[in-house]
Amino acid sequence: MTAVPVSMTDVRELVDGALRAAVGRLDPRTYRVAAYHLGWADEEGHPRDAPAGKALRPALALLSARAALAPPESGLPGAVAVELVHAFSLLHDDIMDRDRTRRHRPAAWTVFGEPSAILAGDALLALALEVLLEAPGQGSSRAARSVAVTTRRLIAGQSLDMDFETRRQIGVDECLTMSSDKTAALIACSCSIGAVLDGASEPLADALEAFGADLGIAFQLVDDLLGLWGDPAATGKPALSDVRSRKMSLPVVAALNADGPEAKRLAKLYAQPERTEDELAAIPPLVEAAGGRAWAELEAERRIQRAAEHLVTARLPDAVRAEFLHIADFITRRDH
Amino acid sequence: MTAVPVSMTDVRELVDGALRAAVGRLDPRTYRVAAYHLGWADEEGHPRDAPAGKALRPALALLSARAALAPPESGLPGAVAVELVHAFSLLHDDIMDRDRTRRHRPAAWTVFGEPSAILAGDALLALALEVLLEAPGQGSSRAARSVAVTTRRLIAGQSLDMDFETRRQIGVDECLTMSSDKTAALIACSCSIGAVLDGASEPLADALEAFGADLGIAFQLVDDLLGLWGDPAATGKPALSDVRSRKMSLPVVAALNADGPEAKRLAKLYAQPERTEDELAAIPPLVEAAGGRAWAELEAERRIQRAAEHLVTARLPDAVRAEFLHIADFITRRDH
Repeated sequence: MTAVPVSMTDVRELVDGALRAAVGRLDPRTYRVAAYHLGWADEEGHPRDAPAGKALRPALALLSARAALAPPESGLPGAVAVELVHAFSLLHDDIMDRDRTRRHRPAAWTVFGEPSAILAGDALLALALEVLLEAPGQGSSRAARSVAVTTRRLIAGQSLDMDFETRRQIGVDECLTMSSDKTAALIACSCSIGAVLDGASEPLADALEAFGADLGIAFQLVDDLLGLWGDPAATGKPALSDVRSRKMSLPVVAALNADGPEAKRLAKLYAQPERTEDELAAIPPLVEAAGGRAWAELEAERRIQRAAEHLVTARLPDAVRAEFLHIADFITRRDH
Repeated sequence: MTAVPVSMTDVRELVDGALRAAVGRLDPRTYRVAAYHLGWADEEGHPRDAPAGKALRPALALLSARAALAPPESGLPGAVAVELVHAFSLLHDDIMDRDRTRRHRPAAWTVFGEPSAILAGDALLALALEVLLEAPGQGSSRAARSVAVTTRRLIAGQSLDMDFETRRQIGVDECLTMSSDKTAALIACSCSIGAVLDGASEPLADALEAFGADLGIAFQLVDDLLGLWGDPAATGKPALSDVRSRKMSLPVVAALNADGPEAKRLAKLYAQPERTEDELAAIPPLVEAAGGRAWAELEAERRIQRAAEHLVTARLPDAVRAEFLHIADFITRRDH
């Protein structure tokens, strides 16, 4: 069997068909919301071409199959499942967080209403498990269990994130715990699920998961940096939206926990019930002056290095290891 | 091994421990919402004794294990899973339907807010699959798949139900399809899941599921009848709440599709944007006069009879068949 090249650009095509077949099982009303959210259709249900998202998790899942010396296609149910869980979490998070924009478009709940968006999210979660449990081979059940446990962690992370919004003092460690659950857990699951589906040994699966856990934290750190200093045209999020929503992102929390006048001024701005546009615009420079930006950049680099070390432990084929590192590199250098 | 008696009153105790152990895995914030919703805690998180719900689905799941000649305990992961899926669907449905009361208490979303209630529902769904996938034995994966497919049907049913609210013309057949997905699918899954966990043959699993599908429609018909003519003190729902929310329940749809002056008057009252209290109170008698009540009562009886025939096909032990029929009888005669 010829190995399908699993570079980030080819993945979407490989996964797209399987993803569409899975989502096509939903009832027509729920399908419409899901197709809009996934970028396949406009608000009226007409097809559109623009792909949604980076397909990072499916790419990792297919690579993960190759890490176990299996053809990438054998990781396909895993790739579909992690993308569905990701889509589910974005759909519901947007409702919970009152985020009105997702990937340059109105969030699904603003278009179809909250009830339909809640229901479509539920459907995508259940579908992820359904797809995995249909996969041939013994690894299917273990992979599905990994996705179920990962979803519990995703929820714990979102729950802690919402809790942060009501609190004054947040430590860097608990903020890292939150990101580890909310973001890194699904990336870790993606990095191991293809191998798990192929019945990989525990040590290999563990090493791939550890790689993904560090990669995931790096991903979140870069995401948080982009939220403060990224180009809105590239990120698809309005400028200062993280600041406006008082998001307790890692650089902000690191800055708030630093000593010095900038940290104090920052804390004051975060405690204020109302902030002017000028005050909002002053926040990113204050985070930087308090050392939050440098810390986050260094921590992201450190995590990527540690992630790479897990790949050495895993003794992967050179080509597979190179692709994993390529994705890690993409994550740290991306602009959206 | 001594067979544990699986009468409706003993089930709660048997299932309660396993259910609490599962829900105990959730993060403390999500746990609190779930514990309130399940009736274990009050709004402050203090324990309370009153059990929530009838534990109908867990009772069926344990009986289902006995139908496969397995001890009822082997159906426990299935009993926990179907109760978790049921709890998930009630949590989310209450948000979608704007129902403020559940089992005589304020609905969880009115107490903890929508975001926390959405998240707790997600957690209960994922947990259902997690519990099943940990169950020992080969049947675990097949049972989990059944729950995932059932959840997709649950969602299709709720989606169609929400669609009904926006429409004038609804046929009795599509209303039966809706109930079959929204209500009967999970009851059918409950009736087969214990046997499936034990690795039952396809014909046995199919017969048990067919029993549950007819039982489930009967259950919904009785529920709809109670919604119109039940005692609010027993049902826990305010009087006329189904009528007020324009719920397209089976007796109402049957009445609307009948000929005659009562059906016309009923259609007019359902089309009116505003209705007085007197007009609302006139609806149940109109449904009855148009034949909706008699049709629903007869259809429920017919479904229970058909359900019983599936049990004959399944060739169950006499004691197990008697308990299934006992539950069917309980369902048709209940007052809440």
